[in-house]
Amino acid sequence: MIDFSVLRQDFPKATKVALVTDSNVERLYGDATVRALEATGLRVERIVFPAGEASKTIETYAELVRGLAVLEFSRTDFAVGFGGGVVTDLTGFAAATYLRGIGWAAVPTTLLGMVDASVGGKTGADLPEGKNLVGAFWKPVRVLRDAAYLETLDERERMNGIAEMIKTAVLFDPTLFEALRTLAAACGEGGCPLPPADLIERCVAWKERIVAEDFREGGRRKLLNLGHTFGHAIEHASHFAVSHGEAVAMGMRLVGGKVPEIGALLDAFGFPVLSRDDPHYTAERLLAPLAHDKKRSGDTVTLVIPHAVGDCRLEDVRLEDLRFAANMV
Amino acid sequence: MIDFSVLRQDFPKATKVALVTDSNVERLYGDATVRALEATGLRVERIVFPAGEASKTIETYAELVRGLAVLEFSRTDFAVGFGGGVVTDLTGFAAATYLRGIGWAAVPTTLLGMVDASVGGKTGADLPEGKNLVGAFWKPVRVLRDAAYLETLDERERMNGIAEMIKTAVLFDPTLFEALRTLAAACGEGGCPLPPADLIERCVAWKERIVAEDFREGGRRKLLNLGHTFGHAIEHASHFAVSHGEAVAMGMRLVGGKVPEIGALLDAFGFPVLSRDDPHYTAERLLAPLAHDKKRSGDTVTLVIPHAVGDCRLEDVRLEDLRFAANMV
Repeated sequence: MIDFSVLRQDFPKATKVALVTDSNVERLYGDATVRALEATGLRVERIVFPAGEASKTIETYAELVRGLAVLEFSRTDFAVGFGGGVVTDLTGFAAATYLRGIGWAAVPTTLLGMVDASVGGKTGADLPEGKNLVGAFWKPVRVLRDAAYLETLDERERMNGIAEMIKTAVLFDPTLFEALRTLAAACGEGGCPLPPADLIERCVAWKERIVAEDFREGGRRKLLNLGHTFGHAIEHASHFAVSHGEAVAMGMRLVGGKVPEIGALLDAFGFPVLSRDDPHYTAERLLAPLAHDKKRSGDTVTLVIPHAVGDCRLEDVRLEDLRFAANMV
Repeated sequence: MIDFSVLRQDFPKATKVALVTDSNVERLYGDATVRALEATGLRVERIVFPAGEASKTIETYAELVRGLAVLEFSRTDFAVGFGGGVVTDLTGFAAATYLRGIGWAAVPTTLLGMVDASVGGKTGADLPEGKNLVGAFWKPVRVLRDAAYLETLDERERMNGIAEMIKTAVLFDPTLFEALRTLAAACGEGGCPLPPADLIERCVAWKERIVAEDFREGGRRKLLNLGHTFGHAIEHASHFAVSHGEAVAMGMRLVGGKVPEIGALLDAFGFPVLSRDDPHYTAERLLAPLAHDKKRSGDTVTLVIPHAVGDCRLEDVRLEDLRFAANMV
């Protein structure tokens, strides 16, 4: 169990903390975590919403901020987002906007949350029109990571995180890429092993470095969208039957054709390939959401194109040209 | 009519603009403004919601951001908040959070909007639990002021702005205070005259100076809350039967007892006095919303107390003590 006493130093004037979590995490760890937080002397209020991406809405966001208001949270109180990316994204967005901004801490319970969602301060919610269309840049004051939470992750959740680690390796780090190749060799019938802690830390460090250079995603941070532009489109077209990790893997394959090692590593981890014959994934369905993509500027979309492992580049592509080239799908 | 061509320089990559306004402003100025914006070569999309403070909700906010998404606004497009404070607060909050932040411009059509709401980047919405409980600090890229809009203002709206100008004078500017005394002398049966443009500009300049010093309201900017802590409580307790200007005037009287000139100037403008006998304004009802007040930190509330015109100070008051002293109401 995490020692939360550091939060008393991070939020010295707080009297209350909102433990924001979803129904799954609440069931597994809720009571113990409330007790651990209470041990710091804070009054702990739970705010729980149903687990799953379907909860990542403005309606849930509204429930969170109203919850804080009903509980009379002041500017010096804070929230803890305790869960996967949906929980930390929503908690961060509520914290960013309640009283025009209060502090928050993230306690990621998934591998994806540890290496990605809890790093870099992107917070937000989905709209019916697309993922993450509202939000704010609002960093958690503290991120508390405990690998013990990963032991209860199912295979799908684990692969979500591994896809993001592969992305990090492709973008920046041939040595990490090699280490992931070694990890993939240990995949078997029962799935793939959890990555060791040093590889997780390495991914966090890469993301922190990029975010520190370019917090508001004016330039270099856009590299982190590798595989995500098409990945989000695929998730959307599949109505979230395809997991985030699978979708990002498919997205990386779509833009990574020049670097066959990428596809080979995704194969080694058992990531599925986008089926050309599946009517969910026609070019039209995959390209439509790009019109809403945040990486869009006017009539072009910025894609991240791998040229080698450790050498990926931002390239502006006209929507027209993508439509024309859609037979690559 | 405002010349909007400056917006092409402010938003050089924009192809679309959302003209966000309320039903009153739309009726008076909608078509002409759309034409003027279209003359700049932008595609103009109107988003209109019902006029009034009752629209300042998360639901309206959600309609605005969904509107931008449906219209496929990209990060380089922008919104224009065209109306009073409710419109510019909501437009700014939508702009602050759509795609985690796009640009916006404010075109205030009320005196209050010109001297207050459009200056300083406070944006947001109300919750059922209280006013402005969600929002963001997100400055408009441009504020376009045109005194011609003030000619259609009713008396109540005009007095809302004058109350805020009195506040500015009490805080910072004995010369402005004198000028307002002269203006008050011209009030008659038909109400009070519109303040001349130089006094409006002087108020804008004061607010801009304070905001530049302390954007996130860590210190000196809190002075601008003079009269507002109790003012918001009075508005709330009256269910908004008392206007913002009247409520702020009442709030200034409550904290301004040491400086009789303040009450005298408010009298000269005809601002009403809080009735001690009205069951709406019991101490309990006025103090309850302070529990939600953003100026609250732990168990104290920071109030702005006038010691002289041009000398107001932030003073921390315990909620307990306020309750005890509530017979001052």
